[in-house]
Amino acid sequence: MLGLMQDRPLTLPHVFHRAEQLFGHKKIVTATATGQDTISIADWAVRVRRLATVLDTLGIGADGRVGTFCWNTSRHLELYLAAPCTGRVLHTLNIRLFPEQLVYIANHAEDEVVFVDRSLLPLLWPNVAKFETVKHFVVIDDGASAEIPDDPRIHDYEELLAAAEPFAGRFSVDDENRAAAMCYTSGTTGNPKGVVYSHRSALLHSLITLVADGIALSEHDVVLPVVPMFHANAWGLPYGCLLAGASVVFPGPNMTPQAIVDLLAEHKVTVTGGVPTIWMGMIPLLDGADLSSIRSVLCGGSAVPKSLSEAYREKLGVPMLQAWGMTETSPIATVSSINSHMDDWSDDAKADARARQGFPAPLVELRIADPDTGEEQPWDDSATGEIQAAGPWIAKEYYRGEGGGEQYTADGWLRTGDVATVDRHGSFRLVDRTKDLVKSGGEWISSVELENEIMAHPAVAEAAVIAIPHEKWVERPIACVVVKDGQSVTAQEILDFLESRVAKWWLPDAVEFIDEVPKTSVGKFSKKTLREKFGGYQVAAPDA
Amino acid sequence: MLGLMQDRPLTLPHVFHRAEQLFGHKKIVTATATGQDTISIADWAVRVRRLATVLDTLGIGADGRVGTFCWNTSRHLELYLAAPCTGRVLHTLNIRLFPEQLVYIANHAEDEVVFVDRSLLPLLWPNVAKFETVKHFVVIDDGASAEIPDDPRIHDYEELLAAAEPFAGRFSVDDENRAAAMCYTSGTTGNPKGVVYSHRSALLHSLITLVADGIALSEHDVVLPVVPMFHANAWGLPYGCLLAGASVVFPGPNMTPQAIVDLLAEHKVTVTGGVPTIWMGMIPLLDGADLSSIRSVLCGGSAVPKSLSEAYREKLGVPMLQAWGMTETSPIATVSSINSHMDDWSDDAKADARARQGFPAPLVELRIADPDTGEEQPWDDSATGEIQAAGPWIAKEYYRGEGGGEQYTADGWLRTGDVATVDRHGSFRLVDRTKDLVKSGGEWISSVELENEIMAHPAVAEAAVIAIPHEKWVERPIACVVVKDGQSVTAQEILDFLESRVAKWWLPDAVEFIDEVPKTSVGKFSKKTLREKFGGYQVAAPDA
Repeated sequence: MLGLMQDRPLTLPHVFHRAEQLFGHKKIVTATATGQDTISIADWAVRVRRLATVLDTLGIGADGRVGTFCWNTSRHLELYLAAPCTGRVLHTLNIRLFPEQLVYIANHAEDEVVFVDRSLLPLLWPNVAKFETVKHFVVIDDGASAEIPDDPRIHDYEELLAAAEPFAGRFSVDDENRAAAMCYTSGTTGNPKGVVYSHRSALLHSLITLVADGIALSEHDVVLPVVPMFHANAWGLPYGCLLAGASVVFPGPNMTPQAIVDLLAEHKVTVTGGVPTIWMGMIPLLDGADLSSIRSVLCGGSAVPKSLSEAYREKLGVPMLQAWGMTETSPIATVSSINSHMDDWSDDAKADARARQGFPAPLVELRIADPDTGEEQPWDDSATGEIQAAGPWIAKEYYRGEGGGEQYTADGWLRTGDVATVDRHGSFRLVDRTKDLVKSGGEWISSVELENEIMAHPAVAEAAVIAIPHEKWVERPIACVVVKDGQSVTAQEILDFLESRVAKWWLPDAVEFIDEVPKTSVGKFSKKTLREKFGGYQVAAPDA
Repeated sequence: MLGLMQDRPLTLPHVFHRAEQLFGHKKIVTATATGQDTISIADWAVRVRRLATVLDTLGIGADGRVGTFCWNTSRHLELYLAAPCTGRVLHTLNIRLFPEQLVYIANHAEDEVVFVDRSLLPLLWPNVAKFETVKHFVVIDDGASAEIPDDPRIHDYEELLAAAEPFAGRFSVDDENRAAAMCYTSGTTGNPKGVVYSHRSALLHSLITLVADGIALSEHDVVLPVVPMFHANAWGLPYGCLLAGASVVFPGPNMTPQAIVDLLAEHKVTVTGGVPTIWMGMIPLLDGADLSSIRSVLCGGSAVPKSLSEAYREKLGVPMLQAWGMTETSPIATVSSINSHMDDWSDDAKADARARQGFPAPLVELRIADPDTGEEQPWDDSATGEIQAAGPWIAKEYYRGEGGGEQYTADGWLRTGDVATVDRHGSFRLVDRTKDLVKSGGEWISSVELENEIMAHPAVAEAAVIAIPHEKWVERPIACVVVKDGQSVTAQEILDFLESRVAKWWLPDAVEFIDEVPKTSVGKFSKKTLREKFGGYQVAAPDA
């Protein structure tokens, strides 16, 4: 027996039309090279409707991939809606990719057009000869002075919009499983792999950004997404803001800590989100700005150190809200909320709880399993296992079958590659990436936990722990340490510091000082680079 | 091109397993005839698993209808999950139905079993001979002394559970469009009609009870649903609470204002929900109780008078949160939130805003249209039209095709029968039911607005306005007024009072005093009864 409910597909046109109809008076602000642009949702919606016509005029296929190579701006948001609402597929290209990755991705996705901010054109154009499928480059003039090549494939965004009639009527996408957007994983190994979001997954994920025990986006919010719109759709914030009717402030090209702080203060931002590196860089500026409007600082992309979260709690009066996920999980999979069983915990214990990755979001199912045997592990906060994920916004495979399915279990769950423990209430705590675990004498050492302990030393700015081959123990950890400016510390002092904090057999076999931890294109520690650098390292057997 | 997301159906087993896995330590309290029962979600979940086995043992069909005739209790909540999670269809029977309606509904739905609270057995049992499909009656002993007939069809709930092994493993419903629950509309005209909720609609609606600009259910909440679980699934609160991990307090059979107030205070309830009548009855008790934990008083089922909402704001410090909807809309369609454009409004203007039905919930689309021509009306807060609704939890037809589809438009939207204006920000304001409008001289008079103005008179307890036939104007309004205990007022005094408050041609042609406004089984004004009573009424032509 079937239910007798209307067959209304869960599609992004709902997000667009809801915003247009209910929130036309709300504003979107974009910081530019020369000042700020402010546009009402009503005017923005007309531009989306014009852009829909432009995509037709350019001859983009019915499900053609629409590439973007853009900062966070209201015009990027126009593309976010116009592409999927007309059945095309938004493909956000990461502006920090290495040229060969960029070319690989655009060709692999078969992008038909790339919309590019003028300030980013110099990054894109040198590769243009290698793009095999792109027929048009549409330059969005963001006030930058970058020269525009004389090439028939190049169009001006504003000229195209001015010449286009706004699409009339309601956008309609019949099949909620149709592709809406795609994003390639940065992939520290192998080629980048494409994750293809459906309308259904994008809409459901947007709803999740509204739930009270999560980001709780509201019509009253003013949201500044620092997280780039080419990172898993800026964690769903753009679509979530439109669905909730929140005001949005886009930072544009100037991503310096001072520029972000100024925007937060000027626009009385209530919710902002970005990776830990961004928030670390802003700490020195927090005392000088009135940030009293902020109610939530969303932090994700990599584990949030307790000290960072506590610094914000001390200075802003609001702790960070940590969320965990990845491109393959749309990305929100967990949110580190403070639940009622913690009500009588000390501030310090709550800070520890916030440093965990937290609880599965509604509709998301998670489990931990032995990475080798697949055996499910208990939720006792002691057993570790790879997090596996299931849910309507979790990927089931990569675009064009890349990766051969090895990242998915036989019963269809995503193998995230992240290793965690889970407490009995369901709070997840990352301990490592499966590939970064150090397997010493048959036991696992968590490189991440060791890094956190080293970074607790007051003279240490950053630390990365990698495994090096070892004759007796198979692998042993070594620590690569960046010392804070103006400070100094010796290897022995770090080992002494660790002695009371970790098991003796966890002590690194060596401490190497480096100038900086190499990062991937999305700002994560590139341990691959460190492993290459220290691959031939020889240490004596530890005396453990 | 299709998205590459996991094919995870949106089904109620997710709600069950999420609650079981994450919130096992949370409590459900039920007030009983003799005290209070408290059960952990973990223990409750085992009982749901036993109940799943019981449904098999009783031989209930794979999609058999499972009737309930119960108060709001944790055992009713067991049925809420066990029936749909095993593929059956929960059918909540309204305990306030007249016997012939009850029999009609149970037969029409083809209920195979009815679970009945012992205290309600005397209401049910006299009709048992007329039930054509019910094979089993399972009595839930709630401590009442009602005699249990000696009949082989009767079973004891606890005995069945004790004898059943808990279902092991995960519940699974493959098709999210499968029926999960059904509820019959009270239907002031014609036979009651069945609305059949799907797993998809029930799960999406549950999510909506979690969004910040709505009820915003959270793990920190303690929720007391006063609204009966046989009214459109208690407005989605039971499933929403399980999804959010909120604690629940069920009032059981004692629905007196004092009993409710006592429960609210004792359990530090944060969110409660019910119809205006309930909250009116509680006003005299508010001063005597510590209700400082309450953050939201959800009110719906009929329009919420401004005076009622303001009384709560004054006494509790929190205004009522009005929601509008109906059985056919699952029921949440609008929520009367205070949006940011009202931030600088006066308290009185905000109170007026709260007395409106408010803004469409995410995923719900609403429009107003002329009830006769179907022409869509503008959102200028002046034009009126029947509200039409579309969305994934809006009914597309009634069970077994009842009503012949006349309640649905050609393009598949639900005709709600409610007439409203909409302001330019999308806030809906009910003015009447289509069938209650008074059509005088080609113009509409809103019976509801007229009633509200009459009820503003200090001596008036309740007022109902109905149309009576009129030779010249086709229809004219008359007012049926209930005077407050210990007060007195004349017809002329009421007309004088109205003179400055409504247009002259709106003034009722007569004011009749009655002892009480007749109510339907769900507590709404039964204007049908009044129209029957005053059908032959003759009045002189007004001098307008």
